[in-house]
Order: sequence, then C-alpha cells, then structure tokens
Amino acid sequence: MCHIDTKERFILQQISITENPNKKDKPNDNALQFGKTFTDHMFIMDYDKEIGWHDARVVPYQPLAMDPASMVFHYGQTVFEGLKAYRTDRGDVQLFRPTENIARLNRSNARMCIPEIDADTALKGIQTLVDIDRDWVPHLEGTSLYIRPFVIATEAYLGVAPASKYAFMVILSPVGAYYDAGINPVKIAVENEYIRAVKGGTGEAKTAGNYAGSMAAQEKVAALGYAQVLWLDGHEKKYIEEVGSMNIFFKINGKVITPHLSGSILPGVTRKSVIQLLNDWGIAVEERPIALTEVLEASRKGELEEAFGAGTAAVISPIGELFADGESYIINNHKTGDLSKRVYETLTGIQYGRIEDPHQWIVRV
Amino acid sequence: MCHIDTKERFILQQISITENPNKKDKPNDNALQFGKTFTDHMFIMDYDKEIGWHDARVVPYQPLAMDPASMVFHYGQTVFEGLKAYRTDRGDVQLFRPTENIARLNRSNARMCIPEIDADTALKGIQTLVDIDRDWVPHLEGTSLYIRPFVIATEAYLGVAPASKYAFMVILSPVGAYYDAGINPVKIAVENEYIRAVKGGTGEAKTAGNYAGSMAAQEKVAALGYAQVLWLDGHEKKYIEEVGSMNIFFKINGKVITPHLSGSILPGVTRKSVIQLLNDWGIAVEERPIALTEVLEASRKGELEEAFGAGTAAVISPIGELFADGESYIINNHKTGDLSKRVYETLTGIQYGRIEDPHQWIVRV
Ligand SMILES: Cc1ncc(COP(=O)(O)O)c(C=O)c1O
Ligand SMILES: Cc1ncc(COP(=O)(O)O)c(C=O)c1O
Repeated sequence: MCHIDTKERFILQQISITENPNKKDKPNDNALQFGKTFTDHMFIMDYDKEIGWHDARVVPYQPLAMDPASMVFHYGQTVFEGLKAYRTDRGDVQLFRPTENIARLNRSNARMCIPEIDADTALKGIQTLVDIDRDWVPHLEGTSLYIRPFVIATEAYLGVAPASKYAFMVILSPVGAYYDAGINPVKIAVENEYIRAVKGGTGEAKTAGNYAGSMAAQEKVAALGYAQVLWLDGHEKKYIEEVGSMNIFFKINGKVITPHLSGSILPGVTRKSVIQLLNDWGIAVEERPIALTEVLEASRKGELEEAFGAGTAAVISPIGELFADGESYIINNHKTGDLSKRVYETLTGIQYGRIEDPHQWIVRV
Repeated sequence: MCHIDTKERFILQQISITENPNKKDKPNDNALQFGKTFTDHMFIMDYDKEIGWHDARVVPYQPLAMDPASMVFHYGQTVFEGLKAYRTDRGDVQLFRPTENIARLNRSNARMCIPEIDADTALKGIQTLVDIDRDWVPHLEGTSLYIRPFVIATEAYLGVAPASKYAFMVILSPVGAYYDAGINPVKIAVENEYIRAVKGGTGEAKTAGNYAGSMAAQEKVAALGYAQVLWLDGHEKKYIEEVGSMNIFFKINGKVITPHLSGSILPGVTRKSVIQLLNDWGIAVEERPIALTEVLEASRKGELEEAFGAGTAAVISPIGELFADGESYIINNHKTGDLSKRVYETLTGIQYGRIEDPHQWIVRV
C-alpha cells in the first residue's frame, strides 16, 4: 500500500451547490438503458498536494477540460465505485450500504497511491447530489438510480509516479430493471487464456485497468454464446475467483461456499450482504479456495444444486450452465434455485424498502 | 485478442493542419524536466464505430472536453507509446525506429479491444507534428523531444465493453539529458509483494493499468533508497521479468542473457535493438527464462559481470547494486561495464546521427 500524507482526509468539507438552469428531459422509466443517460448535476472535489482535498461542489453535469497529458490517460491512476439509489413504494429515496462502497473506494485508493478521501464528505456528496437529482430516481419496479463515484489523476505530467492532482467525482444514471421477465439464469464459460487478476496485482481494488484487461476474454466468450466469464486464479488457473464483474456462490450438497478474499478478488458489498443474510437464516457460508474441479465433480455427482453471481448491477444472477474444458454442465435444470431466489428477494426487498432492514443497511436521502 | 471490424484501418488519412497563433516560450535546453512541458501543437484523429478512424489533424495543443462518463476514466481502455526525436550535429531531426512503436501500439490495441490504426497514417501524423514543432527539438547533448502517441476510449457509457468511440493523439515534450554526469549505475530491489504482470494479463501491452498497478511497489523501493523495482514473474515469483519500465540484460561469465518474451513482458524497441547490435558484434544473446537465484548465484561466484536496463528513456541504465532476499549484491563494483557502455554509445550514436545506421533504424523528419 502506498503511504500518502493526507492530513486533510479527516476534514468534513462544505459542499457548495450550483443549480443547473437547463434541466434535461428525463427518459421514460420503460426505456432506460444502463449507463447511457446522466442526470442534471454532478459532484466534484479537487485534490492538490499542497492543500489536500478541497472545493467540494455540486455543479451542472458538464464536460471536463482535460489536458492531453493528464496522468489518468497515460498511467491509469483511477478508482471507482458503483452503488444505487432506490425508490420505495412510499416515494422515498434510499441508498444501500453506501459506507461500504466508500470504505472500499479508500482501500482502492491506497492500492493505487491515490490520497484517501474523508468518508463523511464522500457520503454527504453522494447524498447531496442524489437529493438535488431525486426526481431522476425512476419509479418502475426494478429500476434504480446508478451512482458512480470515481477518482482520476488530473496532473499533466508524463512521469510514472503518483500524481499530485486528482478529481473525485460522482455522476448518476437512471437504470432499468436488470431482469425484464423475472430473475433468469445465464450461461457462463471458464476462461483459460486470459487472467483477470493475480495476488500482488490490482484485483482487490476497483480500478480501471482490471476492467480494460477483462474485455478481450468477455468478447471471446460472448462470441461463443456465453453471458459471462468464469475467472480462475492467475497463479495456477485452478481456483474459481469471480464471474464477470460479480462474486460467485455455489450450493453443493446443501452447503454454501464462496471463494475467500484471496487478494485478487474484489470484496463485493453484495457478497458481504449475502453471507450475512445466509448467516441470519442459520446457513453457514464457507469462504475458502474452490477448485474448478471440485465444482465440476459435484456437478457430475448431481450435488451442484445452485450457483449464482452476486453484484450491485443484477444483485443475484443465477447460473444455469457452466462451460468448462469442452463440456457443458447444466445447473438446476437451467432454473433459478430456491436459495438464489430467496436471497434475491430478500436483498431487493430491503433495497426497495418492502421488507425490514435488520442490519441498518439502508441510508435515507 | 479482440476482433474488431476495422476495414478503414488500411486507409491512409489526409492530415489537416491548424497552426497555433499563440506560440509559447520554449524552455532553456539546460532546464528541461521530463514530461512537464508540451509543445505548441498536437495530433488527433477520431474513431467512431460507424465511420472508422477519421478527421486526422494537427491542431494547437489544447485541453480536451471530456464527458465525465468517458470510458477511459472508468474502465481504462487506453494504450500508449513512447519514442523520441533527436537533433543531429547537422541540425537535422530524426526518429528512431518509429514503425516498431506503431506496430507495438497496434498489438496493444488488439489486446485492449481498441480498433487498429493505419500504420502509415500514424507515422505521417508523428512526422507532421514533429515537423511543425521542430524548433522544440532541443540542441544540447543528450536532450531530445519525447513523443507520446496514445489512444483513449471517449464514449460516454458506463457498460464494461469495448467503446464505440476513441481518440488517437500524439503530444510532444522536450526532455533533458537522462544522465547529468555521464551514464551512471543505479541500485534496484527485488519486489516480492507486488506483481507487475502475469501471462494472460496485460503485461505485453503498453496500457495504463500496468503502470497504475506498479506505483505502490515503486514507492516502496524508493522509500528504501532504490531507484527501480526488479519485477519477478506473477506465477512463481521466481523468474526475472523487467526492471522498472525497462527490459533487463545480464552478462554472466561472458554470456549475455535477457528474459524471453514470455507473454507478461513488454517487448521493448531498445531490447530488440540491443540484441541486434550484440549479434552484429558476434555476441549471441540468450533469450530464456532467468531465475533470480541464477543471477544471485552467479554474483556469489563472481560471474555476474554486468547488468543493465534497456528502454527509450535512459537507453541503457547500468545496474550497480541489486537488493534481494535481505542481501545486497554489488555488480561490477558499482561501475558501468564495458559492454553496457559500448551498447549505450553505439545506440545513442545512431540516434543522434554520429555514427552509421547499418539497419535503417533512422527515419528523417
Ligand atoms: C470485479 C467485480 N467483482 C465483484 C463485484 C461485485 O461487487 P458489489 O457487490 O460491491 O457490486 C463487482 C462490481 O461491483 C466487480 O466489478
Ligand atoms: C514496462 C516497460 N518495459 C520496457 C520498456 C522499454 O521499451 P522501449 O525500449 O520500447 O522503450 C518500457 C518503456 O517503453 C516499459 O514501459
């Protein structure tokens, strides 16, 4: 981890607001596309080595004037987060575990040598922004407002070294229901050629390079008709790590297992929440190395009962078919398993305020 | 590799020129800092899925208006190159093996799912830009004009998928002599915690994420007084890969060895040129896996005669001391070896037009 002198990190910043005089037309809740439409405002806060983080502000959504030598373009010093604001039946707007995302943002920052951000300022920034754009939180079942906090290195300098200037920003995008016709299993394929991450690399951090590196593999499996890549570990290509941009869970012979946080896996907020819910229900979750062979073997013996991905976008994504070493393994007859379904409904129930929130996961806006 | 339909890649583009009416003051040749000052113009060419690469132009150096949702900020789809223009004693300006850099740019593009760029257009773009800013090529011994071609994903979209819009740009920065007082050995340290790259990852490509990921390790060894990180392979942490942002060569018991291009190593233009020169001189170079233990063992036996890094910035960077597993290994008494020196003088001699160019490496501007 990088040690950066950021004494200002503990200072809660005042947030100034400049309202957008030219409000855009909002898209119809039925026609929302993920990540293509952005709201009327954005949050931005600057960092300069001399003065630390400063000038926190909500301003009209607008292009950034970036020097072509900005370090983010060349050396990729950047981190991001992804969470959502949900509209409840009563019309309230609420966030799901935003402090978890902010804590992860700062862990990613530490790995990427980016100065830490005051967590309270980050939360207040997100809340202030969502509040001013609260009419953008869609109403239709399953829709939400996607929140994208991110940090970019803005110094104009071509040396390979941590930048002295950054911008922390938050932008918002209304998104449609992930499942058009109810939660639906996907087909995934093991990737043997490409590696997403390796211990000692950046896999634990939510940073741009991990995603850029994953695209070739994703394109490859998509061309073969699979929705997501099942990533194996980078050292031995033996252990299961993640599926696409999600963490993964298996139910084998009544037991729930998920890869442990080995250092190359993103510690998902959804993953953490799933484990908590299962514990609440008296179902222990084993967090440990899971060899691909173990899962294939279980499938052959008829013991692989369920498998699902877990992440903010889909919440729970059941896996109906796994392609590995030239063979297809069908899981639960291509149907969503009972446990996957129960987890999905409980999590989305809490997120949309339909059911009780026993762990204070919800933060109102 | 990603397969992108880019039929336009073979089309040589016309380059329009808009001259900068407000020329900047040029810095003094004695006070050049690497990568901080940029010239009066830049080259830019846009890509759009519908029309391919288009609108190649040289324009005044200026900020880019970037949507905050531009994919480069979030998913790091970007590649870059680095080469130099040198001023000869006769006042001419010349490039060193630019077609090698352009070929590597396109190999990086393929790995990162970025559409290929017509090589002739890229070369013409670089030449046109350097030509219009030729007064920026410094005159002092050892100085040069650093050329930074790069591609960034510009589409405003938060989906993890190859972008449909890119910009290919070239910017220029006059740089001082790398060695103030003649070529000078550095101290390097083995890195056991962090990994730069792993086969199946993006190490072979010149892409931002590799550099972002390397900063924590670089900061760590710098704090201990070492100039560069000696990177080991990501699978076994056993084999030597690169040193900092350079390829590495060893002379052991009269033989020259360098790590083979394993898939996680950047194929350096300097590396390739060093191998060619040594072959010209009747010195065979073994390209093969090199275990760290082999080098340490050779050092203990007094057989490690020379070690040097090879890259565009320093050309040759002799290694005077290697720190590994808690011990310091001194190489050639902290002095530049004869072979390192001969390679350095020959390469820089060719670059500055002081000696004959037997392989047509030089391209005049
Ligand atoms: C690589 C990766 N793994 C896992 C996840 C799931 O994390 P979370 O549940 O916090 O969304 C994400 C998405 O955020 C991701 O990008
Ligand atoms: C990681 C890495 N390795 C090696 C090199 C050396 O390559 P070249 O000789 O083409 O400059 C560079 C610099 O370009 C680099 O960034």
